Amino acid sequence: MGCCVLKKIVYLDNSATTAPCKTAIQNINIALCDTWGNPSSLYDMGFYAQQLVDDTRKSVANLLKCREDEIYFTGSGTESNNMAILGAAHARKKRGKRIVTTAIEHPSVLETVKRLENDGFEVVFLKPQANGVISVDDLKNAINKDTVLVSVMLVNNETGAIQPVKTAAQIIKSVGAPALLHCDGVQAFGKMPINITELGVDLFSASGHKIHGPKGMGVLYIKKGVTIKPLITGGGQEKDMRSGTESVPLIYGLKGAVDSIGNINENLKKQNELYAYAKSALLNTGLVKINSPEGALPYILNISVEGYRSETLLHFLESQGVYVSSGSACAKGEGSYVLREMGLSKNTVDSALRISFSNQNTTEDVDCLKSALIDATQKLRRSN
Amino acid sequence: MGCCVLKKIVYLDNSATTAPCKTAIQNINIALCDTWGNPSSLYDMGFYAQQLVDDTRKSVANLLKCREDEIYFTGSGTESNNMAILGAAHARKKRGKRIVTTAIEHPSVLETVKRLENDGFEVVFLKPQANGVISVDDLKNAINKDTVLVSVMLVNNETGAIQPVKTAAQIIKSVGAPALLHCDGVQAFGKMPINITELGVDLFSASGHKIHGPKGMGVLYIKKGVTIKPLITGGGQEKDMRSGTESVPLIYGLKGAVDSIGNINENLKKQNELYAYAKSALLNTGLVKINSPEGALPYILNISVEGYRSETLLHFLESQGVYVSSGSACAKGEGSYVLREMGLSKNTVDSALRISFSNQNTTEDVDCLKSALIDATQKLRRSN
Repeated sequence: MGCCVLKKIVYLDNSATTAPCKTAIQNINIALCDTWGNPSSLYDMGFYAQQLVDDTRKSVANLLKCREDEIYFTGSGTESNNMAILGAAHARKKRGKRIVTTAIEHPSVLETVKRLENDGFEVVFLKPQANGVISVDDLKNAINKDTVLVSVMLVNNETGAIQPVKTAAQIIKSVGAPALLHCDGVQAFGKMPINITELGVDLFSASGHKIHGPKGMGVLYIKKGVTIKPLITGGGQEKDMRSGTESVPLIYGLKGAVDSIGNINENLKKQNELYAYAKSALLNTGLVKINSPEGALPYILNISVEGYRSETLLHFLESQGVYVSSGSACAKGEGSYVLREMGLSKNTVDSALRISFSNQNTTEDVDCLKSALIDATQKLRRSN
Repeated sequence: MGCCVLKKIVYLDNSATTAPCKTAIQNINIALCDTWGNPSSLYDMGFYAQQLVDDTRKSVANLLKCREDEIYFTGSGTESNNMAILGAAHARKKRGKRIVTTAIEHPSVLETVKRLENDGFEVVFLKPQANGVISVDDLKNAINKDTVLVSVMLVNNETGAIQPVKTAAQIIKSVGAPALLHCDGVQAFGKMPINITELGVDLFSASGHKIHGPKGMGVLYIKKGVTIKPLITGGGQEKDMRSGTESVPLIYGLKGAVDSIGNINENLKKQNELYAYAKSALLNTGLVKINSPEGALPYILNISVEGYRSETLLHFLESQGVYVSSGSACAKGEGSYVLREMGLSKNTVDSALRISFSNQNTTEDVDCLKSALIDATQKLRRSN
């Protein structure tokens, strides 16, 4: 019974998650089928498993241009953000009570600093400018000598707007604040060249499943010499910073994803072309407004099709095999707080779509999106 | 170049980790290759991924005889223990300051309650009796009306000793303590029949990789109506209790492992026979002392070969293709605090080996272990 129809899929929601790549899947299976020992075991099977973990650490350190012993593996980008923020704040709480962050961080940052606010920290949430970028003046005004933690994302997950992280590092230094600088780098990792030392951060979070690696795999960079409190304690894995038997399959899977990135600058150049193509194609329809700022990372394009509700559009596109999101996957259908904080009108916010690319996307994908959007506006009733 | 010799392996360290089973590996690959959407996405690909998560929840709930909505997925048994202990203590801290646990818990419990001790909680660490079991009288004396958390493991990870968890629940009730009862069930999960309601616990931790599931996969049971604080906050996954994109591959892999368990009572019956065979075979050598108590779960057999250091024995056995551990994998080579707390002599502790079974082991495996041990005592120099 039943006949299976393979639907042609145009997947343009790569900031939500990505299809695991071949090398990631192969590596995961090596760790599942062959090298399945416990890295803490004292015999050869443990040693081989530990080697896969260490090999991955090397690949990630190469990508971020940092030392291997500055890379820690966690269970998600969210866990990395929690670990960095709680760990830094609790390690430095005797030196000050102020935390500076932005109103457009990922929920894993926002909800976590709110916990610290409840515990007595004073948290400043900087609003973005109209283009979705945090102003340097606002950072200067907010960071003072009582500031123990600054958390600013590198690339906003809804608009692609690149934030002044390096400037934040310079401000902390010039103010002489006792602050550690944390950067949620989940949407930047593997997509733009990053030199951690030049960026000047103390803590940097990344995730595997946004770059064709497995879900359940996070990375936290902790600068050599910086001490934070661990979030998860126990058997002392990851140099006492993150206890729990290492998920060797996912860790080695991450290596597969990292090794498959290729040349980031070349990828970025190609992606800039696709992004320009997409912007122009969509603007030419006369239906679309671009919410992403000039200079955004070209992997995320936020648009609005005013007069049509995001979720209605999303499902119409889905019916055509085109996958995009309304805001971030983690905000499950609520209107985007990021766009609201940018001061965009209710109409713009309610009709927003996030198109997010991977290097596997092509101009044909953009053409499919474009014609599906035109189709949508012809077939769907305007919402107001 | 190079010729590969396949070494016959006798793996008797299943309490450290296990070989992922076929169904687990198949399920993981389904989630990697086909159903790789983000469960939070609003379109069909998200829905299908969420279905794998919910199907797993159903399997785990069936195994523990609880409601599906009482099961939460985490990144490890260690994370589950941290989440339960910190989450319960912080949720109840206004009602009392005492935590009662045992001195023979896994490090993920011990290190985590020590953090609470530093934060002002009073922690009672109950010592076991000579047989490795916590005394009921000690529990009665320790649990009072100021007690907000009791954490007792179901099966000790080094000796297999089954602890009086159900009695602890009854004591909490009869004292009228405001305590939540947490049970680290990692070594019991899937190996002995568990009816969570009858056990009377509020929180129960389990792990995937001890039952032929993947590493990086934990479970926390939270009794319906019980409120604890989340450890990891963000996008609100797992009903706000554990944020972060769900590791669908590992979660669905856990389902594969759970579905492959078969009939626990039949497994246990078979394992009791193998355990009796092993005890008798090893005792017959005249070289071995059994440290596991009568009535231990027959998946863990702790022995000492006095006069020979654990690590030396372990590596000799390894050279014969026989894999066991000296204490728990998480204690990486240190002498066992569990055996010390039982009052065993230094000689006994220093020569201890943990043999841990899965249902894949056979009497031939035991025979290999036995002859390798005899061989060891003939070839190795006595340590004193």
